Amino acid sequence: MLNLRQLDTTHSDFEAEFERLRHWSAETDGAIEERVAAILADVRARGDAAVLDYTARFDGLQVDSVAALELSRDELKSAFDAITPAQRHALEAASARVRQYHERQLEACGRGWSYRDEDGTLLGQKVTPLDRVGIYVPGGKAAYPSSVLMNAVPAHVAGVGEIIMVVPTPRGEKNPLVLAAAYVAGVTRAFTVGGAQAVAALAFGTATIPGVDKITGPGNAYVASAKRRVFGQVGIDMIAGPSEILVLADGSTPPDWVAMDLFSQAEHDELAQSILLCPDASYIARVRAEIERLLPEMPRREVIRASLEGRGALVLTRSMEEACNISNRIAPEHLEVSSSEPHRWEPLLRHAGAIFLGAFTSESLGDYCAGPNHVLPTSGTARFSSPLGVYDFQKRSSLIEVSEVGANKLGVIAAELAYGEGLQGHARAAEMRLKNPRR
Amino acid sequence: MLNLRQLDTTHSDFEAEFERLRHWSAETDGAIEERVAAILADVRARGDAAVLDYTARFDGLQVDSVAALELSRDELKSAFDAITPAQRHALEAASARVRQYHERQLEACGRGWSYRDEDGTLLGQKVTPLDRVGIYVPGGKAAYPSSVLMNAVPAHVAGVGEIIMVVPTPRGEKNPLVLAAAYVAGVTRAFTVGGAQAVAALAFGTATIPGVDKITGPGNAYVASAKRRVFGQVGIDMIAGPSEILVLADGSTPPDWVAMDLFSQAEHDELAQSILLCPDASYIARVRAEIERLLPEMPRREVIRASLEGRGALVLTRSMEEACNISNRIAPEHLEVSSSEPHRWEPLLRHAGAIFLGAFTSESLGDYCAGPNHVLPTSGTARFSSPLGVYDFQKRSSLIEVSEVGANKLGVIAAELAYGEGLQGHARAAEMRLKNPRR
Repeated sequence: MLNLRQLDTTHSDFEAEFERLRHWSAETDGAIEERVAAILADVRARGDAAVLDYTARFDGLQVDSVAALELSRDELKSAFDAITPAQRHALEAASARVRQYHERQLEACGRGWSYRDEDGTLLGQKVTPLDRVGIYVPGGKAAYPSSVLMNAVPAHVAGVGEIIMVVPTPRGEKNPLVLAAAYVAGVTRAFTVGGAQAVAALAFGTATIPGVDKITGPGNAYVASAKRRVFGQVGIDMIAGPSEILVLADGSTPPDWVAMDLFSQAEHDELAQSILLCPDASYIARVRAEIERLLPEMPRREVIRASLEGRGALVLTRSMEEACNISNRIAPEHLEVSSSEPHRWEPLLRHAGAIFLGAFTSESLGDYCAGPNHVLPTSGTARFSSPLGVYDFQKRSSLIEVSEVGANKLGVIAAELAYGEGLQGHARAAEMRLKNPRR
Repeated sequence: MLNLRQLDTTHSDFEAEFERLRHWSAETDGAIEERVAAILADVRARGDAAVLDYTARFDGLQVDSVAALELSRDELKSAFDAITPAQRHALEAASARVRQYHERQLEACGRGWSYRDEDGTLLGQKVTPLDRVGIYVPGGKAAYPSSVLMNAVPAHVAGVGEIIMVVPTPRGEKNPLVLAAAYVAGVTRAFTVGGAQAVAALAFGTATIPGVDKITGPGNAYVASAKRRVFGQVGIDMIAGPSEILVLADGSTPPDWVAMDLFSQAEHDELAQSILLCPDASYIARVRAEIERLLPEMPRREVIRASLEGRGALVLTRSMEEACNISNRIAPEHLEVSSSEPHRWEPLLRHAGAIFLGAFTSESLGDYCAGPNHVLPTSGTARFSSPLGVYDFQKRSSLIEVSEVGANKLGVIAAELAYGEGLQGHARAAEMRLKNPRR
């Protein structure tokens, strides 16, 4: 028997239980913070030599130079050639779909614009790609080739000049699918370096590893801490928490599909969160039965069990409307609208990383190959942040060209406000452009 | 005599001098970090009571309740009514132009989009405003009403539901222009609270001050540290460094205009940076003469002198092309292209917060009323970040609706990759949607 909690929004203790369920806190570990600060300072000071030391110490990988840690384009291609034809096809098909989606994103919102006002003053924004970005790819148990695609392809579509991948290879063990994905995604250079030392090398640059303008990609607590610390020196994407799925179900989807969707989140790790919201008690019971039936078949059943028992929930709601409201309070990373009328509910959903509409849209299709990015805001941060996208690999510059007529009008306004702020230099710079300056 | 350094790109020591010029490091102050961490924890634990304590201690403002620190809409309106007609007009005109520009921004890049692929699968992105944001407005010497407009207007245009302003009022001294600007910009609620305690109140919420989804706006080292620490709990905008201007001049602009533009940055504070790049040595000499002539007239001459001597430079370049390259290495916050052919050079300029084209476009016009935002990336972060904009007050959610035909194609690809990653739950969730599942 799985000890999977069930909540009921009509119960008096619902709010308290819901808050407990929602609560997840990434407590900062002081010891990790200190070690990361020291690693960053050391790599900044000693460059390649420090990278070699930490790679030997943490990854058990002894080499003479950082150059020996670089994966050549030939090595990436060999990995691609060595995987199965089905794997090659899957990587290429996924990459093509992800590229197509992100090209649409570029068209929709990645271009500059400008206009002239009635005085002939030009106003607008120029959009340019970043020059060079770094992609962190975790090694070990969370080595996901799909993440290589999801980080590198939008950078490539944005027009980033160089994409530098780092991936730890403990004791030299390389993941052939990760290398093959780097080949397919068009990574520029790749180094088998990981941890805080890899983040430091990318942020500060070393003699061998080029410094970048932004670092994206998930990692463990050391990587997350290092990214947070180098933020400002370089850009970073979000700091990812445990993965989550929330399924809104109206009872029309086969219950074994929903059960498996809950598993597909829970299997990531013990802290992952899977929640079902449904107004139909009998349907919830059927999903629970499918969970019980299917769990023993799953190779990762122990992780799934720990995740579901620790952080999962089946929630009986008064209505689908109420379920939508609760979903907005959670702001889930993945939100499945497992309904026969998904477009009825979608407008009510304000906060989510990705919204999966209808029974056929399993989260796993989105994770790999539907096209949208699988790097999504976690832990409620969908309230204020967005999926990784082309826009993360671009930046904007305002464009202003004030006409002579415009300068004459704007100068009066600017000078008034500047004097009010005690900034006389600002005021006089504006006044000098007036035809009849006050002074 | 002003001791303003002059560099020459043909000199052998140029690179070394340039690197020294470029170097600016926001060293973290350990003592500030500790105090901020304690304040955040205290406000999180004790809410209003802690806010009252710190406001009494740091701002010398003793009141019985946080409610007494709220500025009513009437109080904001009274401030607006009490300033001069010229000030009222300037605030309203600036606000209208900033609004118009940000409405164009919303049109250009703030809308959702979607398409269906050949299998009928829907893919797209939904764009929604943030529910509630907090705007930090500094008090004291850097109390800028224009910053109220620049933060609140884009939030308003984005459709943010509630805009909560916080502004310290040491010993109860309120800045009437700041209050008037809050009235004009349509701030929802305002509290006279500042420092790390204000950031904490906005991030965690107290009984009186509502928690927000994102905090924007500049502040001192305590505010910057607090924003960095609450990042993740809420969104934040950039952490601003000292302000900078870089002027690319071809010698066609009156030299006193350029001199005053350099002052208008230098007058912000001693750490601000003003740099002129120009291929014409005689023009540089004329600008220097104007600097010497105009400096004694400036009320803030001591700040300007310290800034120019400490961090300013006049740089003689081989050509305008070389000047553009150097500008790209600096990635300045404000970049004036003070040239008779600004559109010849603009395409060469890859990294800048805002680009001011032509002699009439003084930075100060952009600071107050041209329309684009004056909150811009500093300290070289224009390499990877953008002006504050409507997009900072919106977030995106991916939309995916896989058709039955699509699920049949995508399921095979997703399952292949999921098995390769050892995620059987993902694979089986995809396979269940196949018409002829493998199992």
